Order: sequence, then structure tokens, then C-alpha cells
Amino acid sequence: MLTNKQDSFGQVMYDYLHGIRSQEIIERDDGFFSISPGPALYFAPFSEWPTIEQQAIQHAQGRILDIGCGAGRHSLYLQERGYDVIGVDNSPLCLEVCRERGVRQVQGLSLTQLSSRLGIFDTILMLGNNFCLVGNLPRARWLLRRLAAMTSPQGRILAGLRNPYDTDQPEHLEYHAWNRSRGRLSGEARIRVRYKKTVTPWIDFLMLSPDELRTLVGDTPWRVGIVLDDPSGNYVAVLEKSDL
Amino acid sequence: MLTNKQDSFGQVMYDYLHGIRSQEIIERDDGFFSISPGPALYFAPFSEWPTIEQQAIQHAQGRILDIGCGAGRHSLYLQERGYDVIGVDNSPLCLEVCRERGVRQVQGLSLTQLSSRLGIFDTILMLGNNFCLVGNLPRARWLLRRLAAMTSPQGRILAGLRNPYDTDQPEHLEYHAWNRSRGRLSGEARIRVRYKKTVTPWIDFLMLSPDELRTLVGDTPWRVGIVLDDPSGNYVAVLEKSDL
Repeated sequence: MLTNKQDSFGQVMYDYLHGIRSQEIIERDDGFFSISPGPALYFAPFSEWPTIEQQAIQHAQGRILDIGCGAGRHSLYLQERGYDVIGVDNSPLCLEVCRERGVRQVQGLSLTQLSSRLGIFDTILMLGNNFCLVGNLPRARWLLRRLAAMTSPQGRILAGLRNPYDTDQPEHLEYHAWNRSRGRLSGEARIRVRYKKTVTPWIDFLMLSPDELRTLVGDTPWRVGIVLDDPSGNYVAVLEKSDL
Repeated sequence: MLTNKQDSFGQVMYDYLHGIRSQEIIERDDGFFSISPGPALYFAPFSEWPTIEQQAIQHAQGRILDIGCGAGRHSLYLQERGYDVIGVDNSPLCLEVCRERGVRQVQGLSLTQLSSRLGIFDTILMLGNNFCLVGNLPRARWLLRRLAAMTSPQGRILAGLRNPYDTDQPEHLEYHAWNRSRGRLSGEARIRVRYKKTVTPWIDFLMLSPDELRTLVGDTPWRVGIVLDDPSGNYVAVLEKSDL
């Protein structure tokens, strides 16, 4: 779990919920700084979600695990429709925000703490680019095997990602080239989030094209089903068990 | 003059002028990060300026020096009204933006490079909180004496500042206390500006209450005339020669 001083993402959410203007600053390890669009989306009702999320959530079924539940928009939507959904996040303040907003089941867990102690799920949500938190290919394969053991035979993962190649910003193209020159995928970004005096640990954030995702998933108990695409470069891939 | 890599402020202006969304990130030396409201104000016409600036500029007369001219909004306004105005800035990209926008006289100079080689002025503009760039009390006194030698007997300085005490944000109050504990004024902030991969050198940014300003100016050839006040905590003091 993040400490208070590390919980930038949660503090942004918490402040926003309590009427304080807040926005995340993203620092990349090459010294590139950017500003996120702000937390309004994380609190948005279904009608204001990106189309790919509105479509993706229709593929949720059965018992559901919402990984990186944030301010709880997906958990709330599913809960209201009668699903048994558990939200997990490594941010104490995100969990607090979820509770204040009425999410009934939340737990403080980071990605690597997920296990079948939580029970078996039919759907794993990793929307809002949360699949990128798998970080790198070995870690992604490890996690996909772990998630396979935590899901029913018809289990699926709704994997939200960003396609790194959907940019023409020179600073991003240079970073991609730097990555490739040291044997990494173009879209392996090391970032941390800052807000006021908080700063997260460095986070490995893995952006993949749909083809790169297919290659990765090929080595795991999963396969890529339909891919929901968006002009922004974000997409949601529905991962299904490969032995079906 | 700033190098390209240091010219965050100018790059923000340049991008904004060329249709790219841009915003400055402010890093303080205690690890506090914030985001500026964005560059729209720097390009705003007179009708959209803060009231205190609209009032202050009416005190401009004769030959005018615009220190830290930025995107040139004050210089353009005065130039259009027939004044002889020179804009100076230490940002190459700000000067480029000023030229593209039609400011006729601009020079690349930092505060400490100002001298009577520029001739004698009747009005010195330091609006948009630019007086805070004096940095600390000894530097402020040195600069006020220098500016006295560059101005006519009726010369005045339109000094835009921020009152540091006009805040209830805990991070700011803690910083004030830290400053006082090491013998500084509450409002002495050390900051740098980040944008994309650019970062300015550390900047000493001196915020003073009107009373603190009066104490500072008392040791110089200037005195504080009228003070134009704003609910935001920003204000403009009109400094006049004290021997008049």
C-alpha cells in the first residue's frame, strides 16, 4: 500500500471529491513533465465514459474484480446493476473515496498481492489504461498466470491499454527510440505522479499496440478476443481463456 | 539569457501562440508542485486583464520599460496608444512571441543586465507579479537603486506583487514557517518552472505584504504611493521617487 506521502493519485481524487481543484502531474524518467486531464473522468457517470468503456463494461459478467478501482466509477455502475463486485487499489485515499461514494466492497491491495484468497472471479476489470500497470513483459506474464488461477473457465479480463504508437509528439518518439536502443519495447515508460508535496514511487507503465499485446498474451493461458478501439489511441481488449 | 532547455516559460508561450495546449508546472524547493492557470492571461486583451492591471496601466507615462514583457500584452497595449515602450525579457522564446505579435522594441536582457545604456525612462512596468523576481531584500535594494538611476525625476515603477499571507493552504503556511525558522521572510520562495523537458534554473521569488514592501522601499530612493488591491492577494504598488 502507498503511504500518505506517496498517495498522489488518491490525494487528487480525495481533493476533487471535497471540492478542491486538483490535477495529477506526470513525471517521466527522461525529465519530461505533463499534466493529466484531471480527475473529472474518474467520477463520471456511465453517460460520460469514453465509448470504448461503455462498450467494454457490457462484457462484464458474474463475480467481478475491479483492479485499480480509483474513485470507483466502474464498481459503482456494476454494483447498482446487482453484480457482486470487489474493488482493489493500492491507494488508501482512493479506497476512502470509494467508501464515501458508496462502493460496498473495497480492499487495499497492490497488483502483486492479488491471489485466489479473494475467491474466483468471472470478470477482471483493468479499465482506464490499468492494464498498463503490469509494467513489463515478464511481470505481465506472471500476473496473467496468476489471474488465470483466480478466474472461472469462462473468465475474462477487460484490459484497458494505450497504443504508444498513436502519437506524433517529438518527446514521445525520442523516448520510444531511447527505449528500443536499450532493448525495451517502445512503450515501456517509467513515470511517477506528483501532486502538491506527494510523489508516488516510480511506476513501470507498459503501453502496447494490439499486436504487441497478442504476442505477450500468446505465452499465457489467455488469448485476445475482440478489441474495442478509440481514435485517442486508447483501447480495450477482451482477454479470454485460450483453452476454451 | 535562458538556453532553450531552460526556457520553460517561453516554450509555454510559444506553444500556446501556435495552437498547442500548454501550461507551466511550478516546482518549489520543498517538493511542492503546482500548476499555473495557463497562458491565456498572458495573451489577453485589456478588457480581460485583472482590474488592478487595468487601473495600474493608467499610471504609465512618457518613455516606458516593460520588465519581463512575456507575451507582450502590456507593451502592445501601450505601443498602440503611441507610447515609446521597450520590452525586455530573459526568455528568447518570449521575445520571439512578442515579435510575432507585433511588439516593435524588444531586447533580451535579464534583471541584472538592466542599465542606463537603455536610456532614461519615465515608467517601469513590473506587472503580472514581476516585481517578485527581485528575489530577496538585498537584491531588491540593489535593483531599486539601479532603476532610480535609469528613470526621470518623475519616474515611477508599477510594481506587481503577491501578498503571501493571503492563503490558508497548509503547504504554504508550513513553507512560510520554515522560511521564518531560517531567518527568511515568509514569502521568499525558491521555485523553478517545468514544461515538457524544459526546466528553468531555480528562481528566488519574493512575495511581500504591502507593509513589508514599504519597509524594503524605505531604504531606497523610492516610496510607495497608491496600492491597487485585488481579492486574489495580488496587488500593484505605484513606486515614486522619494525625494519629490
